[in-house]
Amino acid sequence: MYSILSQETICALASAPGRAGISVIRLSGPKAFSIASKYFYKKEQVNIEKQEARKTLFGIWKINNEVLDEVVLTPFFAPHSFTGEDCVEVACHGSSFIIQEILASMLSAGARIAQAGEFSQRAFFNGKMDLSRAEAVMDIIAAESKSQHKMAIQQLRGDYSKEFNLLREELLKFTGLMELELDFAEEDVNFADRSELLELQSVVVTKIQKLIDSFKLGNAVKNGIPVAIVGATNVGKSTLLNRLLGEERAIVSDIHGTTRDTIEDTIHIGGYLFRFVDTAGIRNTEDQIEALGIERSQQKIREAQIILALLDAERIEETETIKEQFQLLPKNHEAKIILLINKTENLTEQGRIEIEQRLSHSFNLKDCISVSAKENINIDKLKEKLLQIMNEHKIEATQTVVSNLRHHKLLLTAKEALERLREGLEQGLSTDLLTFELRSAISSIGEITGQDINRDDTLHYIFKNFCIGK
Amino acid sequence: MYSILSQETICALASAPGRAGISVIRLSGPKAFSIASKYFYKKEQVNIEKQEARKTLFGIWKINNEVLDEVVLTPFFAPHSFTGEDCVEVACHGSSFIIQEILASMLSAGARIAQAGEFSQRAFFNGKMDLSRAEAVMDIIAAESKSQHKMAIQQLRGDYSKEFNLLREELLKFTGLMELELDFAEEDVNFADRSELLELQSVVVTKIQKLIDSFKLGNAVKNGIPVAIVGATNVGKSTLLNRLLGEERAIVSDIHGTTRDTIEDTIHIGGYLFRFVDTAGIRNTEDQIEALGIERSQQKIREAQIILALLDAERIEETETIKEQFQLLPKNHEAKIILLINKTENLTEQGRIEIEQRLSHSFNLKDCISVSAKENINIDKLKEKLLQIMNEHKIEATQTVVSNLRHHKLLLTAKEALERLREGLEQGLSTDLLTFELRSAISSIGEITGQDINRDDTLHYIFKNFCIGK
Repeated sequence: MYSILSQETICALASAPGRAGISVIRLSGPKAFSIASKYFYKKEQVNIEKQEARKTLFGIWKINNEVLDEVVLTPFFAPHSFTGEDCVEVACHGSSFIIQEILASMLSAGARIAQAGEFSQRAFFNGKMDLSRAEAVMDIIAAESKSQHKMAIQQLRGDYSKEFNLLREELLKFTGLMELELDFAEEDVNFADRSELLELQSVVVTKIQKLIDSFKLGNAVKNGIPVAIVGATNVGKSTLLNRLLGEERAIVSDIHGTTRDTIEDTIHIGGYLFRFVDTAGIRNTEDQIEALGIERSQQKIREAQIILALLDAERIEETETIKEQFQLLPKNHEAKIILLINKTENLTEQGRIEIEQRLSHSFNLKDCISVSAKENINIDKLKEKLLQIMNEHKIEATQTVVSNLRHHKLLLTAKEALERLREGLEQGLSTDLLTFELRSAISSIGEITGQDINRDDTLHYIFKNFCIGK
Repeated sequence: MYSILSQETICALASAPGRAGISVIRLSGPKAFSIASKYFYKKEQVNIEKQEARKTLFGIWKINNEVLDEVVLTPFFAPHSFTGEDCVEVACHGSSFIIQEILASMLSAGARIAQAGEFSQRAFFNGKMDLSRAEAVMDIIAAESKSQHKMAIQQLRGDYSKEFNLLREELLKFTGLMELELDFAEEDVNFADRSELLELQSVVVTKIQKLIDSFKLGNAVKNGIPVAIVGATNVGKSTLLNRLLGEERAIVSDIHGTTRDTIEDTIHIGGYLFRFVDTAGIRNTEDQIEALGIERSQQKIREAQIILALLDAERIEETETIKEQFQLLPKNHEAKIILLINKTENLTEQGRIEIEQRLSHSFNLKDCISVSAKENINIDKLKEKLLQIMNEHKIEATQTVVSNLRHHKLLLTAKEALERLREGLEQGLSTDLLTFELRSAISSIGEITGQDINRDDTLHYIFKNFCIGK
């Protein structure tokens, strides 16, 4: 990791755009104080550099001798600021006109508009936060559900970075042992024997594998737990979705799939985000484009962590569609299947129990719930079941869960390098070749927290997905 | 005016909602410090009351021992805060989940969500700002153009309140003189004679009238300068509007009129907001509902400050529509009329000059511009003309311009009372009756800055249009 103090001073709106009582503009860099001093007045012009750090100042922002707004300004002195640089935060009234004028005045005094994530990037460069923590901040901002937020805050505050730093240290220790082993190999000294090295490799790979495995849950929590709804036409799939949506004051997003066959709806239930995929379009076809869509739908079913199989209580014998779709699942699939018998509004409680027992037996599935999407019967039971399934995979406070795709890929790369290392050790390859694999693994792990990144393009790629003003 | 310290502690999001680097939550009232102290931690829990005023604190917001977010907290001690009360501002990450959780934690510790404008209302009650300044803040937030903003900032910073306070003082002086005059009337003492009183009345009414007159400009700048477009069907009105819109990266708002005949578009040109009204629908009809619409369109033409009369260069003889609509204007109207000859893209420059001269003469109108909305010819000339008209009415830095409808109404009420007072003086009415009118005028003027308001319902009506968090 290296630290640079940028020559350029950057500015951006840090709060959300829109009419509001307050908006916050951030200005950071070597000229932050001199730029702000040019426009900020109390009774007289104020030299911000001579003000007390972190103490808010009430005054006016004056451009060409005309008062633009009454503002509250807070100076932060390097290195005690978010970016590690001299930094000024200006809280003005939340008007787009005022925001534009303040930013324009900063530009004309020599600042430039910050790129997306540039404040965080500077914080990283100046050693204020490591890379995985900076990424966690973006996940925190994007989190809409309790579980998403919890995972992100653990990445920011918890032992997430520490865990990777420890892994990296173990690999560095490995290097030391390996060099000893190799240096003294001919002298028959027993500092570290091959079996000890292999054991250490195995321990590290096991740890990495555990982190890789956590990604399935992490990714599901972050992007929505994939739930496939299968069933014949007119069995009530949309009614069920609308019922789940309507009852939960959900944040609805209709994502029209890339094909005409996959439609996704995300629904918040009890602190989790579920991503429901309606797979209605799965049937045999000769249309090439439709076939492509069907292939993607089948993919969605295979990726689902939960499958809702819908039957119509009034057409209980029509089970072909469900059975067809079950056949698409790989033999070792881990998806939980819930059998739902819809349209049971005309059944008695006893009738419901009987039909549940009969179908549960016939499909050999433990979870069978008779519902009525239309009349809102047993929908709460379905939600409880969904939550129960998720709580079985609950994230423990002490557990490191990987939810970042970049981290997941780096872990896979590290694991592959370590497996090539094991083969090399077993085959007695040369130090050079073994060290190459080891360095590759160390560098992959180091890239997660940013310790081993020194390529601007990688960083640019990471930070460009941040929001402006952060 | 009276000052109260509310028993209730209120909280709200003060920045705009939406994903962002920073969001600001405001907490104000007697329990602000104790509530924030319950959740704010540095290494240990922090007693905010013992912190330095206006100094930002970096720490975490912790609910039930779980870290919610890293936040920056600033305490403001009464009376040195926006509201005049103990006040805490919490800058958290701009995530709707975090905002909800922080607000919920404040509620569970005894705060309640602030009503719209409640922070400003408290600032008013605690003597931090008068009413017209509080209203100016809302206008500042809503301002989208330079001229709107300038007017609002003058109301906030300039001599706006002072002018009304001076007016009120003159009226109070009036009371003194009148009492003298009346007390000593029978003794033939010449402290203040009737003619002196009448003269003073006339001076005050002139001042009030000037303020009333300024409302026409103030209202136009605030809500958009009304421009009526008249002309026959297919003369190119929409093309012209789209051209004006497209060229200026305008903030477009399509306001579908209350009738089917009036459609308004607001367009920013050179720091002014213009409100274009297309009055296509004006023609004779027997349909009652349509007739109502036409009546409203005619009203719009009468209210317009600028009229764009459009002709088609290729059908130059079709002038009936325009002439009909000119006849609707009252004889003493003050609207500026610009004659626009559209579709001149096939004419030479010389041809354009000739047609302009001919029609300018025929309609007896000074301003005549040949344009092509389609080919973007002379549109800049039209914009310059619009700005030139507005600059003739430019608001001077020293001028008080009334743009607030409430203030306008109060000025009218005050003026009416003073006119009844003049009649009373002339007719020698009793002191009681005269004093009643005078008090009414004083109270109307005082209501503008809030000096003479003590009815909660009036205040509620004013502040309910503020935004939440202000």
